[in-house]
Amino acid sequence: MEELSLEYIQELIKESKGQELVSYYWENDIHPADWAYYLEDLSYEELAKFIELIGPETGLPIFEFVSFERKRRVLENLSGSNLAKLITFMNPDDRADLVEDVDEEMQEYILSLLFQSERQNVLRLISYPDNSAGAYMTTDYALLHANDSVQDALEQIRLQAPKREIVYYIYVVDSAMHLVGFISLRRLIMAPRRVLIKEIMDKTVISVQVDEDIESVAQKMRHYDFLAIPVVDQNNRMVGLITFDDIYDVIQEEATEDMYLLANLDRDENIESPLYRSVKLRIPWLLINLCTALLVVFTVNLFKDSISQYVALAAVMPIVGLIGGNAGNQSLTVVVRALALGEIKLSEHWSVLVKEVGVGLSNGILIGGVMAFITFFWYNNPWLACIIWIAMTVNLIIAGLFGSMIPILLRKLKLDPALGSSIFVTTATDVGGFFVFLGLSTLFLQQLLAVI
Amino acid sequence: MEELSLEYIQELIKESKGQELVSYYWENDIHPADWAYYLEDLSYEELAKFIELIGPETGLPIFEFVSFERKRRVLENLSGSNLAKLITFMNPDDRADLVEDVDEEMQEYILSLLFQSERQNVLRLISYPDNSAGAYMTTDYALLHANDSVQDALEQIRLQAPKREIVYYIYVVDSAMHLVGFISLRRLIMAPRRVLIKEIMDKTVISVQVDEDIESVAQKMRHYDFLAIPVVDQNNRMVGLITFDDIYDVIQEEATEDMYLLANLDRDENIESPLYRSVKLRIPWLLINLCTALLVVFTVNLFKDSISQYVALAAVMPIVGLIGGNAGNQSLTVVVRALALGEIKLSEHWSVLVKEVGVGLSNGILIGGVMAFITFFWYNNPWLACIIWIAMTVNLIIAGLFGSMIPILLRKLKLDPALGSSIFVTTATDVGGFFVFLGLSTLFLQQLLAVI
Repeated sequence: MEELSLEYIQELIKESKGQELVSYYWENDIHPADWAYYLEDLSYEELAKFIELIGPETGLPIFEFVSFERKRRVLENLSGSNLAKLITFMNPDDRADLVEDVDEEMQEYILSLLFQSERQNVLRLISYPDNSAGAYMTTDYALLHANDSVQDALEQIRLQAPKREIVYYIYVVDSAMHLVGFISLRRLIMAPRRVLIKEIMDKTVISVQVDEDIESVAQKMRHYDFLAIPVVDQNNRMVGLITFDDIYDVIQEEATEDMYLLANLDRDENIESPLYRSVKLRIPWLLINLCTALLVVFTVNLFKDSISQYVALAAVMPIVGLIGGNAGNQSLTVVVRALALGEIKLSEHWSVLVKEVGVGLSNGILIGGVMAFITFFWYNNPWLACIIWIAMTVNLIIAGLFGSMIPILLRKLKLDPALGSSIFVTTATDVGGFFVFLGLSTLFLQQLLAVI
Repeated sequence: MEELSLEYIQELIKESKGQELVSYYWENDIHPADWAYYLEDLSYEELAKFIELIGPETGLPIFEFVSFERKRRVLENLSGSNLAKLITFMNPDDRADLVEDVDEEMQEYILSLLFQSERQNVLRLISYPDNSAGAYMTTDYALLHANDSVQDALEQIRLQAPKREIVYYIYVVDSAMHLVGFISLRRLIMAPRRVLIKEIMDKTVISVQVDEDIESVAQKMRHYDFLAIPVVDQNNRMVGLITFDDIYDVIQEEATEDMYLLANLDRDENIESPLYRSVKLRIPWLLINLCTALLVVFTVNLFKDSISQYVALAAVMPIVGLIGGNAGNQSLTVVVRALALGEIKLSEHWSVLVKEVGVGLSNGILIGGVMAFITFFWYNNPWLACIIWIAMTVNLIIAGLFGSMIPILLRKLKLDPALGSSIFVTTATDVGGFFVFLGLSTLFLQQLLAVI
């Protein structure tokens, strides 16, 4: 990437030197995505003026790569005619996303700038739920009719192409807009000119419903290695197109969401959230965890007499909880990820559970054994060593059981398998582990004390 | 998706009824990816025989969607001539991936089936490191020469197209194979036939190096919303092409890897790993955690006299550790994810640290306050309430500090920011939290005991 001089650009903006800015823009032949990256340090006002000075048509490709929040703020700083032009040139799906997020006054103003048909299109697009195919699709795609000839089709593509988002696969509809097939541009070019589209099109076209969850759409596109997938309504009429770049974002966002939920974070937080917002979003999770942690206090309290008689119990106790929590998170993460990627079929739930319990048992015997060995030499107490061995083994079984069962249960309840699951799992391993460890210690307290 | 009858297919395979199988294949007009999905329950031997019966050429599209491990096993079950055909028809990058993974004998056998040029191509492809662009790229792409006319170019595409992976963007090279530009198929179709490619091509072509890390390649493709990106060697000669479907996988895999590392799991594990393998991969992490957990035991041991005098300390203590661990993982996950997505610039490291410490301080005061309130009414001891308030506040500051510092440090050491970081963070919050809590309790033991 070449380097742009941000100072020079800011100076030109300040002095409203449009002509110089335009020539500077064309001299630096870099990708619009990189322009957007370099211009990140401009204020909203500066960026708005930049777009006005180089003109909305030239500025649009850059504007498309600007982050969503900045887009919204830049719009608010644009003058009427420039705003109208920019909005008109934008992709319908980007436009709808923006209109959905600005305040009501701005929304009405923007809608008033659009033609009737475009206005209705925007209103329809913003009516789809946030996580549905409809919210991600574009309505700007090339289309062919089944009864056209290849010659007509190529002519149409030539006319449609410059404006359309993607024309590598072209979808074919009948006279009532029902999706009936598709054809690749490659095949179209190679076909004899007089043949009808319906004779050479591929009829097994795979589509998604407009209200289908975007995560399921992303899974389908990965499954088939699709570049784009058509979106249809209940009557199989084509209403939109979802493209690979949307799927890049969806795969990324879904993974972030799972990762966040596993760490008890809200999906709306990110690294740029201001401090008060991060505090506000994290505190509810900590409060929930505080409530479950009180169960742990309650459990330990049950055995306070044993602890006061043999205080080593209090020192060794955290080991049981820590290793159990770690093992529980291992099971949890493997299962949550496999569920998210669709790698576990419904029929396999039991075998997953059995396996995780088996892993817990094996690891418990091994790691508990190591700890028993250490305990024996540290405290010189075979009883304590045996008790910690048993407690850790039981606790790692609990870890495997809850770590796999909780996400599967949440999925069956139609909730996100990662939702709050780590809190449940660590509470289970702490309460269970401490109960077994302190309970056994209480049962064999005389033997424990006899050795000291 | 329609339903296939697996029993019927198995029967045809068993009775070697090739003709019936071929007609069944063509009757069921479903996508090869779905065929591969349905055939998942066939044994390796059955799948190999299935491919032999319907013929390697027809079977290839299905075979491409079969999981990697199964591909390898199916190859071992194919007869010589069918193996040769299948291998020859495969994409060069898939072929190289397979050759890399089979045993030496099989490797030599497969290489002996290939033509000289293809053999050298495979050997070159498998020489690239696992996570480099070279390991993911295909060598099967359409190419144009700068001095060709549009007419010649279209003719060439017509010839190249049926075999090539993607021909939506076509890359342009000079006579020495240096990458000099690109052109979209769309633009090519619309251009006057006599113009030369170099006059209409886009010269600002963005490429990646063959040894570049695939994660960085994926970030570039997302940044530019690219469908494909050309791969060049040190001399800017084009050597391959990376396409969107590879990037779907990379984004997915990188996210899984981060999630796994945060939960102390090995990247090689997955839901299908057999029990002994899961045990083997998880136990090293648990052992490391056991070592760090011993530090916690050591810390608590320092204060065993105080605990034996006031056993409530042992019961309340786990709260400090649990909430601290949770808060630490929140900071950790936000920072690890932001680093992975390139959302934190080097210059911003300090501000991230300061913010996370600030969040820790605020949440500590709030959640510690709630716990102090509960403690006061539970134990009726204002001193204990104050001590737990202070200990939780300090511990949440530790959580914010270590949760943000450790991944940033690991990144500076050129390690993965998620590597083992959760073990460090929870150890820091446990040791720190217990030290502050028990230390303060020891300092004010007389006051604590006076209230009882």
